[in-house]
This record gives sequence, C-alpha cells and structure tokens, in this order.
Amino acid sequence: MPGPPAAIDAATFDRLLREHVPMAKGFGCETLEITRGRARLRLPFDPKLIRPGDTVSGPAIFTLADTALYAAVLSHTGLEPLAVTADMQLRFLRSAGRHTLLAEARLLKTGARLAVGEVRVWREGEEPDRLVALATGAYAIPSGASTP
Amino acid sequence: MPGPPAAIDAATFDRLLREHVPMAKGFGCETLEITRGRARLRLPFDPKLIRPGDTVSGPAIFTLADTALYAAVLSHTGLEPLAVTADMQLRFLRSAGRHTLLAEARLLKTGARLAVGEVRVWREGEEPDRLVALATGAYAIPSGASTP
Amino acid sequence: MPGPPAAIDAATFDRLLREHVPMAKGFGCETLEITRGRARLRLPFDPKLIRPGDTVSGPAIFTLADTALYAAVLSHTGLEPLAVTADMQLRFLRSAGRHTLLAEARLLKTGARLAVGEVRVWREGEEPDRLVALATGAYAIPSGASTP
Amino acid sequence: MPGPPAAIDAATFDRLLREHVPMAKGFGCETLEITRGRARLRLPFDPKLIRPGDTVSGPAIFTLADTALYAAVLSHTGLEPLAVTADMQLRFLRSAGRHTLLAEARLLKTGARLAVGEVRVWREGEEPDRLVALATGAYAIPSGASTP
Repeated sequence: MPGPPAAIDAATFDRLLREHVPMAKGFGCETLEITRGRARLRLPFDPKLIRPGDTVSGPAIFTLADTALYAAVLSHTGLEPLAVTADMQLRFLRSAGRHTLLAEARLLKTGARLAVGEVRVWREGEEPDRLVALATGAYAIPSGASTP
Repeated sequence: MPGPPAAIDAATFDRLLREHVPMAKGFGCETLEITRGRARLRLPFDPKLIRPGDTVSGPAIFTLADTALYAAVLSHTGLEPLAVTADMQLRFLRSAGRHTLLAEARLLKTGARLAVGEVRVWREGEEPDRLVALATGAYAIPSGASTP
Repeated sequence: MPGPPAAIDAATFDRLLREHVPMAKGFGCETLEITRGRARLRLPFDPKLIRPGDTVSGPAIFTLADTALYAAVLSHTGLEPLAVTADMQLRFLRSAGRHTLLAEARLLKTGARLAVGEVRVWREGEEPDRLVALATGAYAIPSGASTP
Repeated sequence: MPGPPAAIDAATFDRLLREHVPMAKGFGCETLEITRGRARLRLPFDPKLIRPGDTVSGPAIFTLADTALYAAVLSHTGLEPLAVTADMQLRFLRSAGRHTLLAEARLLKTGARLAVGEVRVWREGEEPDRLVALATGAYAIPSGASTP
C-alpha cells in the first residue's frame, strides 16, 4: 500500500540549495531521490573535502547528513525552507577515505512542530550497512507550515 | 596554581588547518587563543555562510564547533593531526543571524584514547551565555600519541 | 536584577514524584532547590544503585539527570506533569563510585513547545566541575501549557 | 555465511544482572536472545514503571536500552562486566503507554577500546519499525578485555 507521494521532488530541493544556500555550490552534493519521508543524497569525492588522514572531513559528512535530513523533512512538509535543525548527533564509525559517499535520511517521527529522523552514510560501491557515519537529528518545523 | 602550558599554540593550529584542511581556506575561521584544554575560535560573518532565514547555516556552525574542539584536543595531546571526531552532538538554541560567531571549546575528560569536551557558540558582541549552539563531542586519540 | 520566581517549588515537585512516579519511591532522590530555570537534586548513595565496578549505575545517573531536567522545565512552565523528554544525551566522564551525587539542571532555551537544558552531575563533597556526567536534553511541553 | 557465535549467552547475561546489578531485580527485564553483536530484551509492563501520562517512564526505557546495548557489547567481548557506558543518546518517538516493550541492540562498530551501537525500542505486538525510542551509544571496553 503506497503512502502519499513526496511533498517535494529532487529537482525542487536542488534548486532550493542552489538559490538559497551559497555554501552548497562548491560542496557538490547531489540529490538522487526523494520519496515520502526519505531522501538519498550523494557527495562525489573531491580532494578539497579531505582532512589529515586523507579522508573526507567530519564537517563535510555533517553537511551531507544534515542536508539529507532537510530533504527528508521537506518531503513531508513541502517546500518549507525555514525548517531548521534543532539538534543533530553524528557518530563516526569508520573512515570515509577518498570515497564518494551516499547518505540516506529517513523520518522516524513527524509531529506538528518537530520532525525526527536518522541518516546513514556509507561509501558508494560498498554495502550500505558498512556505515561511515550514523546521524540522528530533529528539525523544527515553522508553525505556519502546511503539513499535508 | 597554573596547570601545564598548552601543548600547541594558535599559530601552529592555524598552520595545520591551512596546510591540511583545504575546506578551511574559504571558511575563514580564526583561532583566537589556545590554553591547556581550551580553545577560542572566531568565525567572521560572511554572506556565503547563510541558509534560508538569513542566518549562518547549521553546517557552518558545526564546522566551527568541531574545529574548536579539535584545537582543544591538540592543546592537550600536542600536534596529533590524526585525532578524529568519534561523535559530536549539536543543539541549536537560537538563530545565529548575520553575526560573527565565537566558539569556546573546553575538554571535560582526557583519557588515553578518548577526549571529551563541550563547545559553546555565541554571537560576538553579545553575552557568552546567550548561546547560539551547544555542542558536546568526543575525539579519538591515535594510540601512538605522546600525551604529555 | 532578579528574574521571575520559579513557577514550582521543591516541595510541590517532590509531591508530584511521590504521587505519580512509583519508581521514584525506592530511588531516594531529593530536590534540594528549584529556582527559575534551574533545579538542584541529590541522590544519596545506596548499595542497591551499584553495577559491576562498584559504582552507581548509568541508569541511576540517567534517572537523576532526567528528573533534574524535569524539575527545571516545570520551574518555567509551572506544574505541567505531562511535559515529557523528547531526547536526552548523557556523557559519562568519570566513575561515580560509591558516592552521593548532586545534579544541577539549567534551561538553555525555553520555546513555546520545547525546552532545552543541560545537567551536570558530580560527587557530593567534590568540586562541581569534576563532572561524573554531563547531560543535555529537550523536553516537549504540552500545547495547552500556561507558560507564564 | 554465519559469523562467529556470540561470546556470551542469554542465561549468563541474566545471571550477571541478577548477581551484580541490584536494581535489575525489581526491574523485571528479560533477555530473549543474544547473537553475535546483537541482543533482544523484553520489559514486561508493570504499573510501577509509569510516569504522568500513564506511560512507561523515560528512565525505564533508558534502563532497558542501556541493558540491551550492554548485552550486545558482551556478545562481542565475552563476559567483561566492567565494560561501561561512555555515552548514550535516546530519542523518544512515541508514547510507550501501558505496554510491554521490546528492545533490540545492534553493534555498529567494535574497536579495541570502544564499541558503538544502536537500540530500537517498540511495543510488543506492534511493528518493530513503529519505534517508541531510538538510542545510540558507546561502551568503553576495559583494556585487558580478551576481545576474541
């Protein structure tokens, strides 16, 4: 039994980032797919993302995870750019190395004012359960949001 | 009774970022002061850091907080570039707006293999206890580290 | 300049626990002081609280910290028993041993629907900054709450 | 391809709790199954576990989740009672109500000194993905542990 369709599509989300998040431009993250309550993003490896140890940096992985959760939240609320991170926790489980990364965010709870989800990050070409990082976070939803 | 001096100074830490963290270049964060177990950093406001809502983005604040904790860890271990974030949690408490931000990291625990600390982030020119964000995190210290 | 008084006092909070939280009876935690946005609680050492390593257990410390944050939230909202933990993170920094513990909770943010705070736990008789545990957490406030 | 067997079984773990964790006695939690890197526990509903709102309390859910992660850690290390929680984060997603709860812990990373895992908690008789709580946590493993 399929649920309701996503309230935003990948192209609309990418346009939001391109037009309203200047840092996203150089970052290079792509939205692969958005379905209701879920989003999958891809961060192509780029040497400028590394830190000592020759691995994609923690802040780059946070940015990927936070962006993926933002997409998942908007898949539920529709285009509500003012949804903001209330809190986010990341656990780094294995080195990202010089790899392109995939992130899949999934909403676990969608209240009127708060959406909670988790994000799994792994290396492209490897098994999704060999996690590079696991994040959980909450987004505050603006009170006027027309959550369908 | 003063404790031991910091095992790294601000200039050395800034050089580490400049030479080994390419993303740090465009980011513009400055190390104001490092003492034993503490570091204070400053992120000048830059329009490229914003997100919808006209406020410095969550990823920018994470990057500032994570970098501040890295500096505090190295103030204890000495120049151990391979110290890496094990986990990090950020709570966003009020909007950063279009403000220059200050971050102060403080170690709470320094074991042989794990250092734990907290980071407070506030707007420059405002009271330090009007927090924009509060982070807590753990860094894994390489086993060969010569923790003094 | 003193702020508004606490919206609940220690005796009222203790009565709430005694009458509506059966587990609190055997636990033995005492509310020392509630001021606006703050609460200080005390957990007398009791051999039944230990775990292997002859130290007060993690769940006992969580219970103390969560209860302290509950008191701090009610100091702001008034007697709203239905305020519930949305999330809580605890970092264990040093062993509690066989010690009576003190906990001080402090609100960092009080929105209409969510209150965020931190809790510091230390051994009675030691310096408050030699932390046994640091917790941060968020409480969801019922929508009808008459936040003064 | 089956992995190595669990380094501890459910009966041994229950005995550890019974003999060394006095609080576990009244708590009533049962270990249903331990496999390598995983543990499933059950907390029968008991009126003494409730809090205002007529629901199993947050501390009771924390205790269940922390105990499940402890079991999963020992399934990897063998009987190392001194493995201790380094940090734990719980997100409460829906009310537990007056329900018996199930918890499944799964290790995500097992280093020499730190094991990281997640715990899912749901109501017995409901779908496991209708989560009551999601926890992630890290356990510190004693240095002498004979991790097989």
